[in-house]
Amino acid sequence: MTKKEPVAFTELKNFSAKIQTLQSILHLLQWDQETYMPEGAIQSRTDQISLLSSMIHDHKTSNQFKHELEKMVSLSTWKPKVKGLSKESLAILKNWTRQYVKEKKLPTSFVKSFSELTCESSQIWATARKENNFKLFAPFLQKIITMSRQKTEILGFEDHPYDALLESYEPAMTTHRVETIFSGLKNKLIKLLRKIQNAKPIDNQFLYAKVDEATQINICKALLKKLPLEKGYTRLDISTHPFSIAMHPHDSRITTRILPHSFMSNIFSILHEAGHSMYELGLPVKHWGTPLCQPSSLTVHESQSRFWETIIGRSLPFWQNFYPTIQSTLPKQLKKIPLSLFYRSINTVTPSFIRVEADEVSYCLHIILRFEIEKELIKGTLQVADLPYAWNAKMKELFGITPPTDTQGCLQDIHWSLGDFGYFPTYALGNLLAAQLYTALKKQYPTWEERVAEGDLDFIRLWMRANIYQWGKMYDSNQFAKRITGQPLNEDAYFSYLKEKYNAIYSI
Amino acid sequence: MTKKEPVAFTELKNFSAKIQTLQSILHLLQWDQETYMPEGAIQSRTDQISLLSSMIHDHKTSNQFKHELEKMVSLSTWKPKVKGLSKESLAILKNWTRQYVKEKKLPTSFVKSFSELTCESSQIWATARKENNFKLFAPFLQKIITMSRQKTEILGFEDHPYDALLESYEPAMTTHRVETIFSGLKNKLIKLLRKIQNAKPIDNQFLYAKVDEATQINICKALLKKLPLEKGYTRLDISTHPFSIAMHPHDSRITTRILPHSFMSNIFSILHEAGHSMYELGLPVKHWGTPLCQPSSLTVHESQSRFWETIIGRSLPFWQNFYPTIQSTLPKQLKKIPLSLFYRSINTVTPSFIRVEADEVSYCLHIILRFEIEKELIKGTLQVADLPYAWNAKMKELFGITPPTDTQGCLQDIHWSLGDFGYFPTYALGNLLAAQLYTALKKQYPTWEERVAEGDLDFIRLWMRANIYQWGKMYDSNQFAKRITGQPLNEDAYFSYLKEKYNAIYSI
Repeated sequence: MTKKEPVAFTELKNFSAKIQTLQSILHLLQWDQETYMPEGAIQSRTDQISLLSSMIHDHKTSNQFKHELEKMVSLSTWKPKVKGLSKESLAILKNWTRQYVKEKKLPTSFVKSFSELTCESSQIWATARKENNFKLFAPFLQKIITMSRQKTEILGFEDHPYDALLESYEPAMTTHRVETIFSGLKNKLIKLLRKIQNAKPIDNQFLYAKVDEATQINICKALLKKLPLEKGYTRLDISTHPFSIAMHPHDSRITTRILPHSFMSNIFSILHEAGHSMYELGLPVKHWGTPLCQPSSLTVHESQSRFWETIIGRSLPFWQNFYPTIQSTLPKQLKKIPLSLFYRSINTVTPSFIRVEADEVSYCLHIILRFEIEKELIKGTLQVADLPYAWNAKMKELFGITPPTDTQGCLQDIHWSLGDFGYFPTYALGNLLAAQLYTALKKQYPTWEERVAEGDLDFIRLWMRANIYQWGKMYDSNQFAKRITGQPLNEDAYFSYLKEKYNAIYSI
Repeated sequence: MTKKEPVAFTELKNFSAKIQTLQSILHLLQWDQETYMPEGAIQSRTDQISLLSSMIHDHKTSNQFKHELEKMVSLSTWKPKVKGLSKESLAILKNWTRQYVKEKKLPTSFVKSFSELTCESSQIWATARKENNFKLFAPFLQKIITMSRQKTEILGFEDHPYDALLESYEPAMTTHRVETIFSGLKNKLIKLLRKIQNAKPIDNQFLYAKVDEATQINICKALLKKLPLEKGYTRLDISTHPFSIAMHPHDSRITTRILPHSFMSNIFSILHEAGHSMYELGLPVKHWGTPLCQPSSLTVHESQSRFWETIIGRSLPFWQNFYPTIQSTLPKQLKKIPLSLFYRSINTVTPSFIRVEADEVSYCLHIILRFEIEKELIKGTLQVADLPYAWNAKMKELFGITPPTDTQGCLQDIHWSLGDFGYFPTYALGNLLAAQLYTALKKQYPTWEERVAEGDLDFIRLWMRANIYQWGKMYDSNQFAKRITGQPLNEDAYFSYLKEKYNAIYSI
């Protein structure tokens, strides 16, 4: 800001800080629900969340906010009315304007109906998945798609209705741009996958030996000690599904889950969630209440989690340092396993039905499948009744396998039941951005492998802070890619990374 | 209610439900702060609590609430304007009116200043207590007393300024009434205490043997299994100071602390907090949002915690049932200790400096001391500078001992630093009410000792639910005493209980 900050700007910041504080409280309610809440409290928790959500919506769309915003910016042209604003202030205003205009477009009644529908649908989905009963879920999915199509009309779009949904999760992208990126990636990934399938398989059965809870908790502790997470601002708990949630740059928590027959799942979950958490802990507190203290987009968020989970967490240097610890914690399972075999084993590639269990090579294909399907569902060129068939046909095309049940097919993910159409692409885009960041990091730190092998990870966090964390929503995913690598967000770095890594692992 | 509930009444209920939900969220923030919050998050938590508190205050004093309330009741005479209201509705209206009038009296600026002052003071107090430095705390205490005296003027009182403060915690009481009750009790307790001091002492050193954390956690689990707490609605955690906090009748949580050299402290903490928790879990959900789904007063609350901690938790029948479990968990410490000695040991009476460690006979004397002092501080007949002297003189008078430091004297409790003048009497009154309830329970269940010895505790919870929990704020502490025992709240039952019990234990 210039030295004299306009009064309206200060008012907007105070008002927005209030909104962000309410959101941080909402996040604590969600964290508690998944970790420690007594199960009988669910109805009370739903009421608390519903009240707070509606208060947040009321604040975001309030006349008070609008009134102050209009002193600073035109809501029709998004042009600032005040001169001499700093680059930061302009970015803040632009984001506030976008958020306000978007939030205001959706009528409260629509938001409420949609929220009630998805609340019920996600419960129905859980039963349908458990019982492999797609027909049970179908009418709810149909209603969600109908409302999502209405949503695209309300929000507006130029080219493809899917654009309107995608924009919520990744403002830098259009359907067309994702199509271009994914089509380049798709064939290359299929070819690489086929080559690996024809190579000599790696026997990694020792990774699925039973490890009791107490030992797995010791692994958690050792891993937390190793990671450059700022200790006074975070904590690790156990939940059914691993997640990360931030209340504030000084309070960002992660969870993991303990599967007795997959200790690596625990480790990769922590690495993944720690990546998310480091991002939130690195946001600039001085901008609290403004978009500059909020993560850029889901793509950028996912680039951070996948960077730590895969590029670092599945790398040889990381395990050169950490393997002795794990080996001594699990002597029965790992004593006879040399590092080289361990490294290859945690990087085996096998086409499988379930996205969340996918290896690095298959992962984006799972996303591409979902993107292709949900685009058609939203456009209306695919009917809900035909979804299982379409899903299985695409599985055959991409992976060469067919799920034996819908539970292992189109019913596996919760997202659609929550109305989250447009979310999936960010999972793949995050991987692509992570690889682009990796290329830039390597250039700046040519000896990164030696440092990581010596146990130094903090220089990576600091590099991410300088390049990503500290900027909040100042840049979108595409701008970050350009600033850091000189290239727009694209698939080249990712594919090069995969090719180099897996050619070596599978000697192909 | 009559069949046609007035629209204004429904509006008030909805609005109040919103306030109660906000308060339940505030309680979760407080619970998290004391249990799992990363320490670096304290500033962010303070901001969250401050925002939510001020929103709650705004709602409670809003014109919207006043407007609807005035349709139902006159705010000057408290008389209902609508005829044919049920007893429940009348009680709800009366409580709403009292709360509104009181909340409205204190200007927001006063509430804010007082909250800022006590926030700072409690931190200063912690240092002063740690360093045994009364002079450090004195100027803050002086400010708190000055503001508390202003508060009494703002709130108004008829007889004694202390009445205005006491009323916040115990609406059924006046200073004069407490004085009458306490003066009857004081001399009797001192006499009983002197008699015990002259009797043969009980050697209970085995209770202070070291017990490691894992074993103490096993004790917690065994105790929780035994108690009639509704499992799906509660949980137990560890915190620095044990507490109980309720979000909702379906979510009430307790904590304990583990002192390596006092496993009984852990057990009594759980019993105490479980008593509070059962009360909150028994409040009628159908009245959520109204005063009928809120605990009656601090006295009634404390009657519940002390009932379970002392009358049940220090009784022979309870330990006839539970001692074998504890004995087998702690064979090293308890194998050679027969139940009779254990029972006498957990009931030893020794005058001591610290209230929270006091036995049943001394406990109320600690409270009487505080009541006598704070009354004078508020009236202005005792100066802050003279507090340590006055404290020590009263310790000598009541217990025959003098604290060697202010840390063990007038600096021991946090309450005054938080501005909680008028709170202490409810601790003693709760004990008196608990004993009155005990008399009534015994009458209804003459074989209660056999049932408890067999492990049945649920009939007590159900009796409390019928007599206390289900009524919310329908009755105050005095009305409860009269309804259940035919007598107003008084000290007779308590003293009889003590006399009978301790005459037997000390053979006096």
